[in-house]
Amino acid sequence: MARTIQSLERAAAVLRLLAGGERRLGLSDIASAIGLAKATTHGLLRTLQQEGFVEQDPTSGKYQLGAELLRLGNSYLDVHELRARALVWTDDLARASGEAAYLGVLHQRGVLVVHHVFRPDDSRQVLEVGAMQPLHSTALGKVLAAFDPVAHNEVMEGDFAAITERTVTDPAAFEENLELVRSRGWASDVGETWDGVASIAAPILDRRRMPVGAVGITGAVERMRSGAAGQEDLDPRLVAAVRDCARSVSRDLGAGRF
Amino acid sequence: MARTIQSLERAAAVLRLLAGGERRLGLSDIASAIGLAKATTHGLLRTLQQEGFVEQDPTSGKYQLGAELLRLGNSYLDVHELRARALVWTDDLARASGEAAYLGVLHQRGVLVVHHVFRPDDSRQVLEVGAMQPLHSTALGKVLAAFDPVAHNEVMEGDFAAITERTVTDPAAFEENLELVRSRGWASDVGETWDGVASIAAPILDRRRMPVGAVGITGAVERMRSGAAGQEDLDPRLVAAVRDCARSVSRDLGAGRF
Repeated sequence: MARTIQSLERAAAVLRLLAGGERRLGLSDIASAIGLAKATTHGLLRTLQQEGFVEQDPTSGKYQLGAELLRLGNSYLDVHELRARALVWTDDLARASGEAAYLGVLHQRGVLVVHHVFRPDDSRQVLEVGAMQPLHSTALGKVLAAFDPVAHNEVMEGDFAAITERTVTDPAAFEENLELVRSRGWASDVGETWDGVASIAAPILDRRRMPVGAVGITGAVERMRSGAAGQEDLDPRLVAAVRDCARSVSRDLGAGRF
Repeated sequence: MARTIQSLERAAAVLRLLAGGERRLGLSDIASAIGLAKATTHGLLRTLQQEGFVEQDPTSGKYQLGAELLRLGNSYLDVHELRARALVWTDDLARASGEAAYLGVLHQRGVLVVHHVFRPDDSRQVLEVGAMQPLHSTALGKVLAAFDPVAHNEVMEGDFAAITERTVTDPAAFEENLELVRSRGWASDVGETWDGVASIAAPILDRRRMPVGAVGITGAVERMRSGAAGQEDLDPRLVAAVRDCARSVSRDLGAGRF
């Protein structure tokens, strides 16, 4: 059995460090954060720079992530089968619902957005492909946690941070919520991640009926609700549109109809 | 002076291999392409997989790029100062011109697209952030080659491949073209990269008046021309819109007005 390679693990730790928090760091900061000698860290940074994975600001001397990561990330998307199958269906979902559509997969301890269709109006929107969403508060995350045992482990070992006042922070209450998600086949997030914003999501299954991702819509809570002010229920037509989309993508992936 | 780290260079070579051509490769294919023993290659792949940089298909056993690259690529964009400064201006450019707007920077031997604003109509368009464009045939590439000495070296050492029948493949003719780009301050591509598609681009300068990127628009050649059929000139109003945008971003980066 092959061993893992220490210098590669260290290089990955440097990239993770530069991807979070401060994002522009000097050699000493990086060395102390990773727990390595400066000379060792400099060797890592020099090679990462040569390969385009980090860049050094000529003025400040600080390091940041490099352009080669964007190019490789784009190649990852090109080869993503689920995303390719879902492109047309998520377009239809955004059109039918009038809201932004998202496709997410489990990555580490969160949901990685691999496709995002803008809300079909003329408003300025920022593309969120490559962004991470929490598992315990978003509709996409709850779907993964409910249907994918690996995602379930990840969320239950996580910290259930209170992101808004409505975030469910009690693991037992969250488990109950997942039971509901499993029984009705879809998940919602009403202001648990972003104040005033609601989401609806459903699972995508492959030919073995294993969950491989989640698809959903996100929009202002006022538009996502069915009835008058104070009415908590999400619009059943929106729920139906999301579930239709998830079923269509699943069928394209080879999942049976029954 | 720190030495570079061989295992990191090899890992980068594996990722580059998976980013081009076949994209799903078995252990033997990767080992022979990189020129390493299978056991060594397996150690690299195992560590890359553990860190999320590659994924292995459970059915075929083949390797492909991993989701962590998308997450890191997105973090690269978040920290990209030029892109952040250009967001509003490129939005305005797409609106004013009615065409898709692009922001590109030099990366390796090509132009890396770091921002893309869709053409403001309801047509289906595919996001090209993270994609590469050739230096010798595109308007963005010619701008970089004309104004950035590093880009100029890269393009002159390149192969001037004939992408369409109109691509300039003679280095001497290309140099003449660059003189024109320098003298008028903008570059064009009329069917040299995509048949029937034209581009216009202008350079973005920083506070030291060094070229840090290029901004441009791309669209059907029929819409980009000013006059009747057979009229080769690009619409001067579109050229003005692109140059206005480039000047605005440059000013935001601290370049003087003169």
